[in-house]
Amino acid sequence: MVAISPDEEVIPLHILDEINTNSDLKALPEEQLPELCSEIRSFLIDSISKTGGHLASNLGVVELTVALHRVYDPMRDRIVFDVGHQCYTHKLLTGRREGFARLRKSGGVSGFPKPCESQADAFIAGHASDSVSVALGMAHARTRLGGDYDVVAVIGDGALTGGLAYEGLSNAGQSGEPLVVILNDNAMSIASNVGGMARLLSRMRVKPGYIGFKRWYRATIGEIRPLYSALHRIKEFVKDAVLPGNMFDDLGFYYLGPVDGHNIQALESAISWARDMRVPVLVHVLTQKGRGYPFAELHPDKYHGVGPFDPQTGVLKSSARTFSEVFGTALCRLAEADERITALTAAMEDGTGLARFAKKFPERFFDTGIAEGHTVSMAAGMAKQGLVPVAAIYSSFLQRAYDMLIHDVSLLQLHVVLAVDRAGLVGEDGETHHGVFDLAYLSSVPGMTVWCPASFAELREMLNWAVNGETGPVAVRYPRGGEGEYRESRVEPASILRAGRDVTLVAYGTMVNEALEAARMLEWKGVSAEIVKLGRVCPLDSGVVFTSLEKTGRLVVAEEVCRAGSIGTRLMAEAVGRPPFAARILDLGEGVVQQGSTGELRAAAGIDAAAIAAAAMELM
Amino acid sequence: MVAISPDEEVIPLHILDEINTNSDLKALPEEQLPELCSEIRSFLIDSISKTGGHLASNLGVVELTVALHRVYDPMRDRIVFDVGHQCYTHKLLTGRREGFARLRKSGGVSGFPKPCESQADAFIAGHASDSVSVALGMAHARTRLGGDYDVVAVIGDGALTGGLAYEGLSNAGQSGEPLVVILNDNAMSIASNVGGMARLLSRMRVKPGYIGFKRWYRATIGEIRPLYSALHRIKEFVKDAVLPGNMFDDLGFYYLGPVDGHNIQALESAISWARDMRVPVLVHVLTQKGRGYPFAELHPDKYHGVGPFDPQTGVLKSSARTFSEVFGTALCRLAEADERITALTAAMEDGTGLARFAKKFPERFFDTGIAEGHTVSMAAGMAKQGLVPVAAIYSSFLQRAYDMLIHDVSLLQLHVVLAVDRAGLVGEDGETHHGVFDLAYLSSVPGMTVWCPASFAELREMLNWAVNGETGPVAVRYPRGGEGEYRESRVEPASILRAGRDVTLVAYGTMVNEALEAARMLEWKGVSAEIVKLGRVCPLDSGVVFTSLEKTGRLVVAEEVCRAGSIGTRLMAEAVGRPPFAARILDLGEGVVQQGSTGELRAAAGIDAAAIAAAAMELM
Repeated sequence: MVAISPDEEVIPLHILDEINTNSDLKALPEEQLPELCSEIRSFLIDSISKTGGHLASNLGVVELTVALHRVYDPMRDRIVFDVGHQCYTHKLLTGRREGFARLRKSGGVSGFPKPCESQADAFIAGHASDSVSVALGMAHARTRLGGDYDVVAVIGDGALTGGLAYEGLSNAGQSGEPLVVILNDNAMSIASNVGGMARLLSRMRVKPGYIGFKRWYRATIGEIRPLYSALHRIKEFVKDAVLPGNMFDDLGFYYLGPVDGHNIQALESAISWARDMRVPVLVHVLTQKGRGYPFAELHPDKYHGVGPFDPQTGVLKSSARTFSEVFGTALCRLAEADERITALTAAMEDGTGLARFAKKFPERFFDTGIAEGHTVSMAAGMAKQGLVPVAAIYSSFLQRAYDMLIHDVSLLQLHVVLAVDRAGLVGEDGETHHGVFDLAYLSSVPGMTVWCPASFAELREMLNWAVNGETGPVAVRYPRGGEGEYRESRVEPASILRAGRDVTLVAYGTMVNEALEAARMLEWKGVSAEIVKLGRVCPLDSGVVFTSLEKTGRLVVAEEVCRAGSIGTRLMAEAVGRPPFAARILDLGEGVVQQGSTGELRAAAGIDAAAIAAAAMELM
Repeated sequence: MVAISPDEEVIPLHILDEINTNSDLKALPEEQLPELCSEIRSFLIDSISKTGGHLASNLGVVELTVALHRVYDPMRDRIVFDVGHQCYTHKLLTGRREGFARLRKSGGVSGFPKPCESQADAFIAGHASDSVSVALGMAHARTRLGGDYDVVAVIGDGALTGGLAYEGLSNAGQSGEPLVVILNDNAMSIASNVGGMARLLSRMRVKPGYIGFKRWYRATIGEIRPLYSALHRIKEFVKDAVLPGNMFDDLGFYYLGPVDGHNIQALESAISWARDMRVPVLVHVLTQKGRGYPFAELHPDKYHGVGPFDPQTGVLKSSARTFSEVFGTALCRLAEADERITALTAAMEDGTGLARFAKKFPERFFDTGIAEGHTVSMAAGMAKQGLVPVAAIYSSFLQRAYDMLIHDVSLLQLHVVLAVDRAGLVGEDGETHHGVFDLAYLSSVPGMTVWCPASFAELREMLNWAVNGETGPVAVRYPRGGEGEYRESRVEPASILRAGRDVTLVAYGTMVNEALEAARMLEWKGVSAEIVKLGRVCPLDSGVVFTSLEKTGRLVVAEEVCRAGSIGTRLMAEAVGRPPFAARILDLGEGVVQQGSTGELRAAAGIDAAAIAAAAMELM
């Protein structure tokens, strides 16, 4: 097989072509490893330039992954990747090269680990910071059931900012379970890192004394296994006496590192050593995000997750204007007028469109790291004392803060504004990232108001209303990507967007565009559809819908959320005792939706314009 | 005022009687403070012996609270208590002594901080580990808005095991915000402490070198404020060179301690010093849980939260058999037969009835500390590798793991068994602890099955079914306390518990007892009620209900959960298109329910037998 170089020359992948099994990789002479890594990078850059995907994070872990696959057997041992932004080389080396042509596309290879794709994918990933907990559970199972395999968690420094990782490390360190945690420290996660952990890691990166000592210590004990525990005690004593400890030691891990993450030999030695110690070991690996692709090395955040790009110039195809950008600009405008407004993000400064706010109002901008729960609780504290915090968090990540929304925000009815980005289907990231549960969980939070704009203009006005009009907990939920044909602004709980006689279509957010198209399709067939557009989805103002139903007697609700807590369910519940009508509810069922473009996914789920029109026709 | 001593003698509270304002306390001569603390303890023991409440934790922080109130002004400064198990002295000193007669009772003083009760209560509390996040938000607000007050978080070593606390500390340490975190370290939270943090703290407790250095350092700089920052740099240099650091230093906090938590002068000095440093400071305070009451000193876990007891002998009124105990016993039996079964708890070994399991199967028992998210993710890892994990978590605390249930358990449809304890109204702990949201959030988790036993026998059989019959994510939810008149066992999704003609009553869990009583009330009035008892509440099997409705034409649903996601709502949604019937849905509305006995609360919310009968009569 060959990869196509930037200038369409064919790059032969001589070594990669020969790697068909894990044994092939293990048998490869050490001197060929750098060339293999180079071939992998060529393949990744070429492939991702066509499909889009997570570039910089995957380029950073090529050597680390090769080393892991040489020390472990990925089919038998359990390598648990955290978040999964770094699993491409792992997929390449476990027989999924062909699938990269449709990476992240419908039916293609997923951009995240998926046990259904390969036995080599030990667990699912997508949400940060769970890998140590999952790996510890696996290690316990291995030990309890007498399994003959090793367990490894691979976690980035970014994911370490999440409290879940700390809970996992704290338990794992004390468990005594043989377990290796690889800390992939590229010093900048998605955006640059924040918080105490970053400070700690940066201090550890420059501890020459400690490294020197470790080197001497390792050289001294070599491979003599029986001496390990005695030497360990000596080391601990010496370290406590003369060397600064670190948090990982404190939590009960045996700390190894830092190790150069681009030196395969060093990595193999450290990982083998860690594996053989049969205790909880943390291997601190320093990697460079974007390694081997100069554009990505220079701007690793810009090249973290990319769409298709020109591999030769690194030029990213400019994307259309998004709801996130509109949110960021609108919030800047509101913040100019009211200095009580603060903006919060959980490590998604760029993704949520807050980069401009951060630059313009650095003292009112708070990036908490990957810590959604803390973000919401901190916002509650701010609101209690008179600020107006606006927390921008992706819908599926906000699930982490469900309890904090109830306990810290709702019980005191604090005016915390949630900007719920990526609400609805997100496309290529697949089932771990779709924002399809927020309506269910936000609706159960006492006193929560949820607005759902369908256009940029509406987002601006609803955000303004959420900040200046509401006084309790309020969310504005908007999707990934941009607006469709609907460009008006209606900041009303419910309104008639299009008058009709025969059937009532209910939609909100950008699903309004599907409803508009469905109405046109129906018109061609002589059916007159009335569209009720909801601006506020919680609490639900169903009056307009039922008034329309008195006229039409037929209802189609189409929504991009799971059925639990959906508008359709709630409308049905409110319909009891009213004049009868025929109804079809179109939604995402349980809410598990695979990867693909939003258009494909809407069609597959049966919630697009064609499905709405078809449902309406069935009712006629 | 006087307190009644164990043998009914009147103990005069001379000093406490004179403390009416914070100024009175600040004016009190130092030599009278020990006597004041002694009076407070007498009052607490006497008062709690009558009402029940959190005893041991409150006895441990008497001196600490007095010191906090002498350094700060609780009406102006913001003291954020974590969990709130330690706020009684704070309430006593802020004018709420009278209210203790009805502590935790309907209309009485809450056992937790409540801003609606007093301006002195800076924030709500009940769920662990949020205090640092909330306090940091308040500190930011103070600084941004130019407020003239100080912010303090008071957090126990137990709450430190929660990842949220780590997220808060990590951000606070880096913020530079003047903020004091008081670590109330009694070395054993609710049960004895677990995990790396406990190990770290126990090491810090015995670092004489460090303490000695601190003492010298403090003595040297005395009160000379201008020298602080220069000396701080020197101290940091010296410490890095010769003294072991700790995690709090690593996270960016200035660490002070350990301080004797029962020496008011030492506490006042340390806290004043921390306040005046104008940076994030952590004061490590060592306290003894149960201090001053020998029975509680000896068994602090037993006296953590108590019902009424005999103050003289410490004898606790023995309580009736609970669902938690039945669960613990039943799980032991299942575990004897299947060695794949493991039990997990998040710091609630006793509360969840797992103490016997822990003793019997120590290698299959996992107490994770206050870390519900980690518990669920670890259980997912266990299930993936062949164990059958049973995670016992209180309904309202399981909210913390909502995302982990979706991401780590549900997407792979892993067989994780959730034992959801304290589901429904819990009584005296009030709105932060009622388990009234679980049906809403569990129903939105894809593929989740939820069983709800109404009797001990049913709990045993449903747990057996969840472990041996189900193969995906499954929850068994049961209430605080014991069973009622219903003692049968029906492990069926839905069944007719009582046949009738005129009205269909739907209930599940111990609400079945209310339905039975309502049916008798209705019978006296000549109305024949049919009771449909649900055993499985998700997925809902509504067939039996609708069949019954064909006969009766009248429906009353009574449930102890919030309306969102309730059975009533789902039944109504499914009723569309069916023959019309009259219906009344009785539930807890938004789910915010105050404290009181379960009976009082059911009556007040209008879901008890009388309310069910009244609703049915309205339909006749």
